[in-house]
Amino acid sequence: MKDEAEFAEKVLSENDKFQGKIIRVTEQTVELPDGRQSTREIVYHSGAIAILALTAENQMIVERQWRAPIQAVTYEVPAGKLDSRDTNTLDAAKRELNEETRLEAGNLREITTFYTSVGFSDEKMTLYLATDLSPVKQALPQDDDEEIELVYWDFAKATELFENGQMNDAKTVMAYLYWKTIQG
Amino acid sequence: MKDEAEFAEKVLSENDKFQGKIIRVTEQTVELPDGRQSTREIVYHSGAIAILALTAENQMIVERQWRAPIQAVTYEVPAGKLDSRDTNTLDAAKRELNEETRLEAGNLREITTFYTSVGFSDEKMTLYLATDLSPVKQALPQDDDEEIELVYWDFAKATELFENGQMNDAKTVMAYLYWKTIQG
Repeated sequence: MKDEAEFAEKVLSENDKFQGKIIRVTEQTVELPDGRQSTREIVYHSGAIAILALTAENQMIVERQWRAPIQAVTYEVPAGKLDSRDTNTLDAAKRELNEETRLEAGNLREITTFYTSVGFSDEKMTLYLATDLSPVKQALPQDDDEEIELVYWDFAKATELFENGQMNDAKTVMAYLYWKTIQG
Repeated sequence: MKDEAEFAEKVLSENDKFQGKIIRVTEQTVELPDGRQSTREIVYHSGAIAILALTAENQMIVERQWRAPIQAVTYEVPAGKLDSRDTNTLDAAKRELNEETRLEAGNLREITTFYTSVGFSDEKMTLYLATDLSPVKQALPQDDDEEIELVYWDFAKATELFENGQMNDAKTVMAYLYWKTIQG
């Protein structure tokens, strides 16, 4: 295998294009390994967590919510951005599980961590498995511009939606496929 | 379940913030279902395909390449953006498989389609399974600002990288988990 340095692009300049609440967009001018120049568009993001939360009845908890980029309602596993309250992804997972499902997990462990769309963004997401769920003692305030409805899928239902192409959120597909690999 | 209309946000205005080669960024001002206003940041993208390409030796084809957003080399399954040459995602999958691996697939079928990060982007990706691979008769030109090295993982190697947390690209994790579900 080639050395990592043989692939590296040298950043000649990086210009801010947009600063929003959740993303920052820049354009880099880079020197390619062969000496030519190109540009790279980058969306910086604070990172996020997602949770495969399985109930005692072996159902997956899913949220219905409106998503502006596609102007439609999606089905997604509980998830959220890291914010200033979180010292790590585990904190974020506990907080989001509380805020969005009013549950806490006796077992909460990392499945894996990945970049969601590394061609243009540094958004990094950690997927957790939450089991041994029980109602929280102290409910945290919910995001005030998020409207969420919880639904519950057993494995057969999730499989049907996956097979029909109706499960169309990446982290939710990943959570389902992982769930499939741990079926008894 | 609530009706989809009960979730819908009304777009009051949408302003362009950045137009790049591969992304377009806007900011929407929206009216929430309860009448309050909020803003949504959106990254529009042409869509993409990714390919779980399995060789006759039952190895997964993976690419090493530099990724500007994280300033590092990644391992990713073959993938690419839809472009003006493609009439559909199947065309794009055939083209990218040719450009990046110099192979064509006797069997090329869709596994699933999903939004990669629907909280802020409309990027939609279709994951294909490619088997019965053979060298192409006519090689297509490669993207001239992409430097790629091919590597091959057997299932044990892929599992090791997943378990160690070294497989950190979403579409590659998804391809691996799908591969795991079809292991004999």
